[in-house]
Amino acid sequence: MTKATVTMRPKPREAIIRMAPYHPPTGGRRGKLRLDFNENTVGCSPRVAALLKRIADPDFFAIYPEYTEAVPKIADWLGVGPEQLLLTNGTDEAIHCLINTYVDAGGEVLIPWPTYSMYQFYSELAGAVPRQVPYHLPDLAFPLDQLLEGINKNTRAILLANPNNPTGGAIGIAEIETILDRAGDATVLIDEAYFEFYDVTALDLLTAYPNLFVSRTFSKVYGMAGFRLGCLLSQAENIAVIAKGQSPYSVNSLAAACAIEAIGDQEYISNYVTEARSARQRLTEGLTELGIQHYPSQANFVLAQFGDRSENVCTRLRDRDILIRDRSHEIPGTARITAGTRAQAEQLLQALKDVLAETNG
Amino acid sequence: MTKATVTMRPKPREAIIRMAPYHPPTGGRRGKLRLDFNENTVGCSPRVAALLKRIADPDFFAIYPEYTEAVPKIADWLGVGPEQLLLTNGTDEAIHCLINTYVDAGGEVLIPWPTYSMYQFYSELAGAVPRQVPYHLPDLAFPLDQLLEGINKNTRAILLANPNNPTGGAIGIAEIETILDRAGDATVLIDEAYFEFYDVTALDLLTAYPNLFVSRTFSKVYGMAGFRLGCLLSQAENIAVIAKGQSPYSVNSLAAACAIEAIGDQEYISNYVTEARSARQRLTEGLTELGIQHYPSQANFVLAQFGDRSENVCTRLRDRDILIRDRSHEIPGTARITAGTRAQAEQLLQALKDVLAETNG
Repeated sequence: MTKATVTMRPKPREAIIRMAPYHPPTGGRRGKLRLDFNENTVGCSPRVAALLKRIADPDFFAIYPEYTEAVPKIADWLGVGPEQLLLTNGTDEAIHCLINTYVDAGGEVLIPWPTYSMYQFYSELAGAVPRQVPYHLPDLAFPLDQLLEGINKNTRAILLANPNNPTGGAIGIAEIETILDRAGDATVLIDEAYFEFYDVTALDLLTAYPNLFVSRTFSKVYGMAGFRLGCLLSQAENIAVIAKGQSPYSVNSLAAACAIEAIGDQEYISNYVTEARSARQRLTEGLTELGIQHYPSQANFVLAQFGDRSENVCTRLRDRDILIRDRSHEIPGTARITAGTRAQAEQLLQALKDVLAETNG
Repeated sequence: MTKATVTMRPKPREAIIRMAPYHPPTGGRRGKLRLDFNENTVGCSPRVAALLKRIADPDFFAIYPEYTEAVPKIADWLGVGPEQLLLTNGTDEAIHCLINTYVDAGGEVLIPWPTYSMYQFYSELAGAVPRQVPYHLPDLAFPLDQLLEGINKNTRAILLANPNNPTGGAIGIAEIETILDRAGDATVLIDEAYFEFYDVTALDLLTAYPNLFVSRTFSKVYGMAGFRLGCLLSQAENIAVIAKGQSPYSVNSLAAACAIEAIGDQEYISNYVTEARSARQRLTEGLTELGIQHYPSQANFVLAQFGDRSENVCTRLRDRDILIRDRSHEIPGTARITAGTRAQAEQLLQALKDVLAETNG
């Protein structure tokens, strides 16, 4: 057999070999009370679902995606020009494109830690050097001074979620400007996945700062995580460069069509934000009543401190079909609980009360 | 103003700077006779559209995608194990992931030329060195000897569409085995986007060749280009490595759900294949009748030789709401015509007859 001697298994790049497999724990979540991924817990606007029924025409889906209607409408809604906006396959592709455009192998990426794990993931994928800047303990305050001290001539990107996940805290415009001022020609991403629950945006700084990038998503408050749609915003010159390296059809047609419908139903979004904020308030009160420490949150979740019981609590809640997310590998003893509706918060608190009684006993 | 002096526009990677912007010509295609992108010209299976109506439940879309049902079902249908299959955001992500996993900056990628432009695109994006191996003129025969001669110790990937786009020709299993045998530890991608019209697959070689990768798509015969769904297949060990660098949620929920429905309706697919092959036959006869040279095709399109009139013919057909794709920048004088239904072929031929009469006059 000639082939056995000459054909070999290809060797992956070193950056890939070094990466650990990522295992998103997302099988079998339907039908459960899902307080583990900070999604909208009641679903997208009924207008989006209604649109899908209207466009259920076989010919619609046969065509490669077109973004000529979605881009100007979404840009207009965000108050930017269409040339300042890139639609992306979830925020994930926004991060991927940003790093792919500006960070060479060996470049440094500053990442306050813990945070959204994909910042580290795409940095490693690029063969870059992620530098984690730890949040302060015990209060999980933002490590501004340490971040600024970490900036050096090799820093190519600074990736910040604001509000941050899983800690829940947020920084203000003054801190963001300080970082932008000190970043030099390093890119600064402000990932506003949870913007709607916080109401502070860096978008107004785009004109002044050529190193600023802002991302938004339809996966959280919009209830459209299954569609995969995000946005990356920056100055037009930057977006044009990033677009050169983006897959031309990475966003599917349904996402583009449904996003237009979704942004047209702001009443649904503002009602859900009001409800989720109220649920967050109830969650924090209820956790306090149960003697569970937690951290201040500007997003649609609360990080709770369960100490040694964290994993056990998550498992026992799962047995009751309630999903929350263990974060103890990042901050010992913690689990993250999505704030959905007040009724869901009550259901969680009641189950948690039972679980805590069991684990104390 | 301190900020103006210290904040600078970030510098893109050299690989990005070198890339030309890619402008997919895909605005305003709805409502026209679309013979320009080799899509299914009548749409996806009605069962897919019906499924979408059934799942038009707002809660469905709020959840991050799950692939636990789709992966084993699609793998089973393709006759491979689930660990040999990666679902991808179109074939584009399959190519992107393959290159990202195995090709470092500076590595060489062999690409018979002309072919699907994304092979070159993702090679450039990775900072790799694409080496184009020209198809033979004037018959557009596959350049097997030249390809084999082009393999050297720096070759990291060989990317082949089979049948090839836009030439339409295909190679057999013997040629593929020859390439695999000579490729050593370089990866070999056989992109079977047009497999259904040709019926020859490299999938049966997966067990014997650890350097073989096969891709399939739902964008062509399945009529689901708008959904963005492709598949990458290889030995399990390779797929596990590639999965490490893939975005965990790059395929949307609707694509995953609808693909299951689509593969369940093989009668629809085989009927369409029969119709498109018949339309292809009619196209070649009609072109011959009109005195237009064309190339043998195993796919759902025909590459026609219009000489100096190519661009003019495309424009005049567009004025009649019939879209075909000018390929004269790759092979002088050519345009690619999708074979859809026989009625569509007749419509195209009638319009073409008029256009040719105009451009002759």
